[in-house]
Amino acid sequence: MADRERLFLELQNTYGIRRLTLDSFALRKLPGALASAKKGITTTIWNKRDVIDLCPGFAPRLVGMAFDVGTSTVVGYLIDLETGERLSVRSAVNPQIAFGTDVISRISFCQEKENGLEKLRTTIVQCLNDLIVDASEDAGIDSELIMEVTVVGNTVMHHLLMGLDPRYLAMAPYAPVLQADQDLKARDLGLEVGKSAYVHLLPLKAGFVGSDTIACILATGLHRTKIPSLLVDLGTNGEIVLAHKDRLICCSTAAGPAFEGGHIRWGMRASAGAIEQVRLDPDTLNVRVKTINGKRPLGLCGSGLISATAEMIRRGVILKKGNFSEEVQSPRLHQGKDGWEFVLAWASETGNNHDIVITQKDVAELQLAKSALYAGATLLRELFGGEQIRRILLAGAFGNYVDPLDACTLDLLPDCHTAQVIGVGNAAGYGSCLALLDRNKRREGQRVARKLQYQELAATERFQDLFIDGMCFTSAHDYGDAS
Amino acid sequence: MADRERLFLELQNTYGIRRLTLDSFALRKLPGALASAKKGITTTIWNKRDVIDLCPGFAPRLVGMAFDVGTSTVVGYLIDLETGERLSVRSAVNPQIAFGTDVISRISFCQEKENGLEKLRTTIVQCLNDLIVDASEDAGIDSELIMEVTVVGNTVMHHLLMGLDPRYLAMAPYAPVLQADQDLKARDLGLEVGKSAYVHLLPLKAGFVGSDTIACILATGLHRTKIPSLLVDLGTNGEIVLAHKDRLICCSTAAGPAFEGGHIRWGMRASAGAIEQVRLDPDTLNVRVKTINGKRPLGLCGSGLISATAEMIRRGVILKKGNFSEEVQSPRLHQGKDGWEFVLAWASETGNNHDIVITQKDVAELQLAKSALYAGATLLRELFGGEQIRRILLAGAFGNYVDPLDACTLDLLPDCHTAQVIGVGNAAGYGSCLALLDRNKRREGQRVARKLQYQELAATERFQDLFIDGMCFTSAHDYGDAS
Repeated sequence: MADRERLFLELQNTYGIRRLTLDSFALRKLPGALASAKKGITTTIWNKRDVIDLCPGFAPRLVGMAFDVGTSTVVGYLIDLETGERLSVRSAVNPQIAFGTDVISRISFCQEKENGLEKLRTTIVQCLNDLIVDASEDAGIDSELIMEVTVVGNTVMHHLLMGLDPRYLAMAPYAPVLQADQDLKARDLGLEVGKSAYVHLLPLKAGFVGSDTIACILATGLHRTKIPSLLVDLGTNGEIVLAHKDRLICCSTAAGPAFEGGHIRWGMRASAGAIEQVRLDPDTLNVRVKTINGKRPLGLCGSGLISATAEMIRRGVILKKGNFSEEVQSPRLHQGKDGWEFVLAWASETGNNHDIVITQKDVAELQLAKSALYAGATLLRELFGGEQIRRILLAGAFGNYVDPLDACTLDLLPDCHTAQVIGVGNAAGYGSCLALLDRNKRREGQRVARKLQYQELAATERFQDLFIDGMCFTSAHDYGDAS
Repeated sequence: MADRERLFLELQNTYGIRRLTLDSFALRKLPGALASAKKGITTTIWNKRDVIDLCPGFAPRLVGMAFDVGTSTVVGYLIDLETGERLSVRSAVNPQIAFGTDVISRISFCQEKENGLEKLRTTIVQCLNDLIVDASEDAGIDSELIMEVTVVGNTVMHHLLMGLDPRYLAMAPYAPVLQADQDLKARDLGLEVGKSAYVHLLPLKAGFVGSDTIACILATGLHRTKIPSLLVDLGTNGEIVLAHKDRLICCSTAAGPAFEGGHIRWGMRASAGAIEQVRLDPDTLNVRVKTINGKRPLGLCGSGLISATAEMIRRGVILKKGNFSEEVQSPRLHQGKDGWEFVLAWASETGNNHDIVITQKDVAELQLAKSALYAGATLLRELFGGEQIRRILLAGAFGNYVDPLDACTLDLLPDCHTAQVIGVGNAAGYGSCLALLDRNKRREGQRVARKLQYQELAATERFQDLFIDGMCFTSAHDYGDAS
């Protein structure tokens, strides 16, 4: 009897597993495994369906990799599939940034450049492969041992990775090419892991609500909450989900890049030397800044911008409409080339010999971003009958680094003064890890995707009204008067 | 609704096709196809299961390619899958010949050389890809339109193409890595056809009875014969199948390379200038030769060797035991560096200015080959109760070019004097074409593979006896006496 037929017979007789397939690359290992096996062989079977690995004796470690592919940042988690242990976490800037900083500019790149889609696809595949190599080296394992991969990301990132033309995501009716979760051979995506490994892509909801949002919901258990809860995953886009009593409703806001330090005079990514916290002396308006890694300041990341703006509101430097107060007397507040600006660090204190300032224009950028967020969340709240939000979950870097008090000062979200505000870390990444380890979580993900209602914001007049309302810093006047 | 879900709903509602998959490469064509479709799109669905192609409007030609991968020669048939029309046939020398002329030497190459298997695998894949390009250009079509491929070949060729270590085929119990037929993505084999196309490899029977034999049976309908029939597919190996009354029994003989002109002093492949037919004047022993393409002779191909030997037997030059007659007086018969030799063409008549001769050693090589064949067929006949064979089907180049009369003179096969002897051409290739066009033929192939009994020759003492008996030219003595 042939090797393969012997193996199948044994698996059927001993384990009752029928109707198996044997991946053609795993098959290549079969004759050698059988010949050198003294005490049997180990077979790795995917989903009770497909034999994806074979080795003589006991198998070495079985590992998997969970990815969260963000527009700006890609994170990979290398995980022991038997123990659930996290062996390594690696992240990288999404190198597609070279072709466009946000999803819209990447869609344009696909439309306008020859082979644009293929360029973006190979770029992200290379990035994932680099993270696979990094994480494997870090954990001291062979990347060929990675037998399962999960991927979450927004719909555009998902489409680009799969080589699907995203141009229709930017046109009404904004329909994705597919919504359902996918199991593919990792080799068909170009991922350099086990030759027969699978990759599971979690389901999408809509053109601008991707599997990262589904993953956030899975990770936070939002779909099972008993109290009205709001989840905000704020990256380059902002996805908002409101949950209560077995209902889930979501929207996406084009919050703009301000929250990540984009379009800001001294904006920078959250890396060494970025100002992440600002304190103003109430009397002298002297500034104390805290930077990432304690380096001399080089610029201002998203949380630094929020911290600085909130502190300036509290000290009366910024007024309700976002304008700088004319009553403030300080050498830090002066006219620059873009109009009024406030000096956070003098050239002599910085790492680049320039005054690091926050400008009137920077504040306006932040107002646009926060107002989109506020309006989106408020609209969802209204669709739920206006019930008060009792818990706010902040996911992503935003949730980790933004002080809930600052969020309140800026009126980032409705009910943030009264709700419990919790940072939940990189919930999308955690959701990807859960789906990697637990098949039930994948089924739960499918149910969440079906249950989740999507609200298109551009379509509603109410959103426009709320957006305009949301521009003001409602808490500013009080502080402004007090200073 | 997403594009993929819309498509699936339509296919389900209109055609009742459920539980479909959509190949990830075909999926990439979906948004563009839907966007540019004015009157619907065409989907190509494999086996009612997997969507493998999509295009707006009506699909262009749907074509497939059937391969017969021989140890020495590879043939590819490009076929219109809708009409069954043969669009092009291309053949090539199997380039693995550079690493070993027969299956045993290629197995050794895998065992002894680093990356030997991978070298052989990529070599044959490249050969198939070259044939795909040639045939497509010949037919004026894009090779991306090839959506289905079939492959037949002996077990070693099959294993090498699939990247399966063939070393255990040369060791008892000579078990193949797998027997069942396989459906793989052509891209996983490395074939450059439609990105989502499948390749179907027909089932194997044993280490030395491959899918080429199954294909020969399919093409000749041997499994449905009503009279005792023998099928011989003689290439570098010789496979023999005896069929009668719903029974099929087969064996493989290591006939050696003589039938293909190997190990013969002036042996050559069947190409221009090869002597393929020889006639001796009964009185003068003058020789008339017929060469391929009518060129001046350069050597002797397999059928030429058989023709020359048969004619020399008939004219009494070769005696019963294969030795040259000492009674023949002719300047053509003289001692050469390898012992006695007979001149078929004088240097002045040839294309290379050498006497082209047939040596005593050449005749001995042919005796080994024919005796293996004879003994194998006789053994099968005995296993069938010794019933007389009434029909002999000669497949492969052998069947096309060998004169049935010569086959009788040489006692190539039992009962060949009385049976109907028919050349059936490249039956393996035709069987591959049938399986390409007709799913029922694939199922028939599976049934044939199950029904076919395999007789191992090396294991039987009787074969050794028959082999020794078979060495003689039993019809020689009469002619020898008559001359």
